[in-house]
Amino acid sequence: MSTSHAAHPDRLLPADPGTRDIARRLLANVEDLPIISPHGHLDPAMFTRDEAFENPTALLISPDHYLTRVLHTAGYELSELGVGGHEADPREAWRIFAANWHLYAGTATGYWVEQEFEHVFRIDPDTISAGNADAIYDELSAILARPDFRPRALAEEFNLEVLATTDDPLDTLEHHKALAEDPTFSPRVLPTFRPDAYTKMYKPEFAANVEKLIQTAGEGKSGWEGYLTAMRNRRQYFIEHGATSSDHGTHNADTTPLSDAEAQALLDKGMRGEATFEEALAFEANTTFRFAEMAQDDGLVMTLHPGSHRNHSTSAFQKYGADVGHDIPFQMEYTNALQPMLSTFGENKDFHFVIFTMDETTFSREIAPLAGYYPSVYAGAPWWFIDEIDAMNRFRQYTTGTTGFSRYSGFIDDTRAYCSIPARHNTSRRVEANYLARLVAEHRLTEDRAADIIVDLIDASPRRVFKL
Amino acid sequence: MSTSHAAHPDRLLPADPGTRDIARRLLANVEDLPIISPHGHLDPAMFTRDEAFENPTALLISPDHYLTRVLHTAGYELSELGVGGHEADPREAWRIFAANWHLYAGTATGYWVEQEFEHVFRIDPDTISAGNADAIYDELSAILARPDFRPRALAEEFNLEVLATTDDPLDTLEHHKALAEDPTFSPRVLPTFRPDAYTKMYKPEFAANVEKLIQTAGEGKSGWEGYLTAMRNRRQYFIEHGATSSDHGTHNADTTPLSDAEAQALLDKGMRGEATFEEALAFEANTTFRFAEMAQDDGLVMTLHPGSHRNHSTSAFQKYGADVGHDIPFQMEYTNALQPMLSTFGENKDFHFVIFTMDETTFSREIAPLAGYYPSVYAGAPWWFIDEIDAMNRFRQYTTGTTGFSRYSGFIDDTRAYCSIPARHNTSRRVEANYLARLVAEHRLTEDRAADIIVDLIDASPRRVFKL
Amino acid sequence: MSTSHAAHPDRLLPADPGTRDIARRLLANVEDLPIISPHGHLDPAMFTRDEAFENPTALLISPDHYLTRVLHTAGYELSELGVGGHEADPREAWRIFAANWHLYAGTATGYWVEQEFEHVFRIDPDTISAGNADAIYDELSAILARPDFRPRALAEEFNLEVLATTDDPLDTLEHHKALAEDPTFSPRVLPTFRPDAYTKMYKPEFAANVEKLIQTAGEGKSGWEGYLTAMRNRRQYFIEHGATSSDHGTHNADTTPLSDAEAQALLDKGMRGEATFEEALAFEANTTFRFAEMAQDDGLVMTLHPGSHRNHSTSAFQKYGADVGHDIPFQMEYTNALQPMLSTFGENKDFHFVIFTMDETTFSREIAPLAGYYPSVYAGAPWWFIDEIDAMNRFRQYTTGTTGFSRYSGFIDDTRAYCSIPARHNTSRRVEANYLARLVAEHRLTEDRAADIIVDLIDASPRRVFKL
Repeated sequence: MSTSHAAHPDRLLPADPGTRDIARRLLANVEDLPIISPHGHLDPAMFTRDEAFENPTALLISPDHYLTRVLHTAGYELSELGVGGHEADPREAWRIFAANWHLYAGTATGYWVEQEFEHVFRIDPDTISAGNADAIYDELSAILARPDFRPRALAEEFNLEVLATTDDPLDTLEHHKALAEDPTFSPRVLPTFRPDAYTKMYKPEFAANVEKLIQTAGEGKSGWEGYLTAMRNRRQYFIEHGATSSDHGTHNADTTPLSDAEAQALLDKGMRGEATFEEALAFEANTTFRFAEMAQDDGLVMTLHPGSHRNHSTSAFQKYGADVGHDIPFQMEYTNALQPMLSTFGENKDFHFVIFTMDETTFSREIAPLAGYYPSVYAGAPWWFIDEIDAMNRFRQYTTGTTGFSRYSGFIDDTRAYCSIPARHNTSRRVEANYLARLVAEHRLTEDRAADIIVDLIDASPRRVFKL
Repeated sequence: MSTSHAAHPDRLLPADPGTRDIARRLLANVEDLPIISPHGHLDPAMFTRDEAFENPTALLISPDHYLTRVLHTAGYELSELGVGGHEADPREAWRIFAANWHLYAGTATGYWVEQEFEHVFRIDPDTISAGNADAIYDELSAILARPDFRPRALAEEFNLEVLATTDDPLDTLEHHKALAEDPTFSPRVLPTFRPDAYTKMYKPEFAANVEKLIQTAGEGKSGWEGYLTAMRNRRQYFIEHGATSSDHGTHNADTTPLSDAEAQALLDKGMRGEATFEEALAFEANTTFRFAEMAQDDGLVMTLHPGSHRNHSTSAFQKYGADVGHDIPFQMEYTNALQPMLSTFGENKDFHFVIFTMDETTFSREIAPLAGYYPSVYAGAPWWFIDEIDAMNRFRQYTTGTTGFSRYSGFIDDTRAYCSIPARHNTSRRVEANYLARLVAEHRLTEDRAADIIVDLIDASPRRVFKL
Repeated sequence: MSTSHAAHPDRLLPADPGTRDIARRLLANVEDLPIISPHGHLDPAMFTRDEAFENPTALLISPDHYLTRVLHTAGYELSELGVGGHEADPREAWRIFAANWHLYAGTATGYWVEQEFEHVFRIDPDTISAGNADAIYDELSAILARPDFRPRALAEEFNLEVLATTDDPLDTLEHHKALAEDPTFSPRVLPTFRPDAYTKMYKPEFAANVEKLIQTAGEGKSGWEGYLTAMRNRRQYFIEHGATSSDHGTHNADTTPLSDAEAQALLDKGMRGEATFEEALAFEANTTFRFAEMAQDDGLVMTLHPGSHRNHSTSAFQKYGADVGHDIPFQMEYTNALQPMLSTFGENKDFHFVIFTMDETTFSREIAPLAGYYPSVYAGAPWWFIDEIDAMNRFRQYTTGTTGFSRYSGFIDDTRAYCSIPARHNTSRRVEANYLARLVAEHRLTEDRAADIIVDLIDASPRRVFKL
């Protein structure tokens, strides 16, 4: 066994010796369970192609805005790191990363990378530095060339049982189909219906997208009727290809429905590019309501991720495009926003609605009370910026008193960083053990019950909530 | 002594052995003090009638929306639990509860029920399960038939010294009077003046209520003048019957006053059912200001509980009515909202104004700074969803640095669940011991001072703040 | 060594013995480092005059609204404490403080005062009481008369290396100049450019201030052009006298720029006293943008402190004026408010922009994501009400997962209470040791890295961020 810092068997467990002993025993129940990942952003073609990863930078740095953000704060241009399609010498980018490795201390990203080095690449992360940047780059390159580091081999190594991807409604899902039919590949790779490209009139590509959608799947109908028909059809197509959930990255959480006539009028404005931002939000809110309505019939689990100011830095957006690390959360409101939808569909226990937030203030104030009443509502795991050790612990502390443990979505890694998946899931298991051990140590729970609960949280919750 | 989990003498105390020893010693100072409950929702007739409780379900399940909510999330209809006047077989409802007892793990409600079983009914809560639901139901039924389980006997058993109820301004207070005059009953059962039924134009019964109020107590005056006169008269009547406080469950915390002419004009609209929601809120804000004004003269302590979206699920409201568990908190703002009232009356130290919140974000940002300046303002104990072990601890952590311990309302159980009262107060005492022990262990407080403080928090604070 | 409670070497360190040992070792790296105070409110004339402090009340009580607030909650008039220029018998004020010393238990202020008594005056703080108020007053008076308690001697005793003051743009800075030229005085006392008196049209003195500004430094230009010219000139003057930063106490965080024509039109309205509150805020937002623009050229670090409702109690304001303890924080929003400015200047790593907040909800939701992306943005230390032991710990817990340790401003004491400076900085050092020790104990950081980090946080961060 490695004796490196990152391999310590008690990492993330409580410091108090008595509580730590409880946590160790709880963790032992779940540490080796298979990984169930019901929401993420990997490309399914990775598994059909099963090619070797290009180089360490392309695998670990350029696509991971969690990681490039930190280097950007230190004054590096995103282009130097190969972000947003910019060409960069991968070895030079790696050197920048290695020389700034100390900046990641204490961050969630730093912890994941450390764990990847220790447990995936078997390289001691404490050796990362400017001095041996090149040596590690070469060592990693050699590792990536090995057949046991191809995507499929790693999936086995990672003990991946379910992996959901995030897909455009018009995606052919050919890779999902190929994988499902391949008897030599055991993980279930499932698509997720993500219609965001068709709900946001405030984006320039809206009209073209909607036109294509209606043309492709609208059964010859036009306008709002064609829109709804196409969405229903494509959801069905996704279901036939294994999808169990739809995902919605809205601006806010509003779910106010419109009449068909109002929706048609707004859609017309949006198609002409004439909708105001407020009108665009009203249209988006109505689509959220309508997707919930469709879920009553087709049973897709619905996940909602609002509250991010996308592309905050105008200058960076112009240079690098979207999703490069400068989306910034803002204040969220769920109680009033979700009322129209939950008042209509919320009492249906076969409807599963998972709320995510990056505004922690809503945990105890809104999300726990909603998930603690409505049979349809589940509290989504802490997401993005707050998918982080201390915040995960706070999520438990702020919700458990109201909801207990049965209203939890299960852990969501939501990642583009393939090799971080085991580290992320392991982190979640350790944080749960840490939290539950405290309850046991304070005599708020018996250790037997805590052992049942941790297995339920890690294994049964995501299967139950995501209908896997 | 019981050896069950729920009876552990160190429950809720810190896990660190050194800190736990301090907490044990601090707790010993207050664990056996009498219960002072300055705000709650019991029916005073319970004590004049002193009848045996009907059955376990009617006592413990149907009236307690904290408890029925959890079963509702698991897919049970509220009607199956006897909520909202719906007939339900009490034994069947009990079986549902017992079969789902594991869902309460980690919740505040689960902890209270556990403590009730252990310390009130002397039944090991770890034995609750589907398998012995009937056996426990029968055992509880037998217990409830015993004379020492009548309400008065329990009051003695619970060491209840003061219990305030919540009453309509037109209540005759006959039960309070009878109890006060009964030399065989020692607890003080005090009414609380709660005029909410007369301040909310957005409720359908508003006009009828106000008409009756003015007719009954308006001394022949009409309109806004009659309204104010009637309120003053009824407050006086309450004071004569032992009331020391008025309670106000407002939508938001606004206290903007209106001129008499403006108030009259709004009242006219409200009586005709023509007020908009905004106008209704303006009227409500003005009444909050006016009740504070009355308190300058008559000395009633004023408590404010804003910030709940009542009856969130329209479909459930239509089936079960109000107060059945789907009120959901929303974001609160106090700094600007209370400014008109505090700028006028806030410097009067004989005026006692207690602010409650379910929005924890206001603890350090608004409530502690307000209670840490104005001699009239007290920080109310965490309420409703956040009357919960971890949240109570956060309340201390978020307010003490600014206010110290002297600006605290004392613990408020706010309950309809009679048998949970000892558990709730005991929880509060343990949480205070837990928090103070940490300060002592970190050398931020001497243990002698901490011992004085815990007695002050538990015993002197509610007497002082509620003028008992 | 003193054996008093307040002198305990483990004060503020974690209670768990293993974690405490780590914290002790981490603290040893920084406990004796010099004090760098890049933002505060002392009068530089204190050091040029170097006179003995008048009496204990004038030094410790009357000017410190943190301290007088607490006594005010207990029902004392601010006038009895010599606040706002009111004459009060200093010995009587002292007696009030001593008799109410127990009210400070658990507060940040109480802890600082305790430390001042123990480490500056060498008086056991546990002896403060009504009974020996006079004895301590006399003892303190004798101490203040000693030459080693003059401001300059204390600066040496405190190990003060840098101390920034807060100054009006038209200040002559003569005291700063005299101190800089004095070879017998080693601390660097630096001015800070604080233009608030010229940005707030909602204050009565606005027009007169702006007129004087333009006349003095506008190079003969008038209106908005004169305003900008004067500001640029005075910033330059401050830089020549050692200033490295400008400080901005705005109402909210809005940074929306105006065109010159719009700014001129608003300025005209403001000069005539005709601007609405909304217009005044729009003008203020534009000035914030313009100061950021100037910083691109002249390099002054920019600090922003929004979010306080100034002079909340109208009645107290009329009696005592501003800054006497009833400024109350309100809800803050940074993501949208700062977008115009950060989109324009935020990518410039030579621009240093430090955000302060008293709304802790923004730590993880807005400030950490902003400081974790923009090379210009730094998270300011917890300020004012939340410059408090538990809140400082929360700041780390809510930001580190996203930003790590490199985006921190360094500790800011922001104080008017000279003798509390060592206690405040020492508190910060202990809180950092406490937090880092937990990360080490949980194997999230090696102790070697933690030792580097604590030195960086305490010593290098403020030098780097404030360009000292």
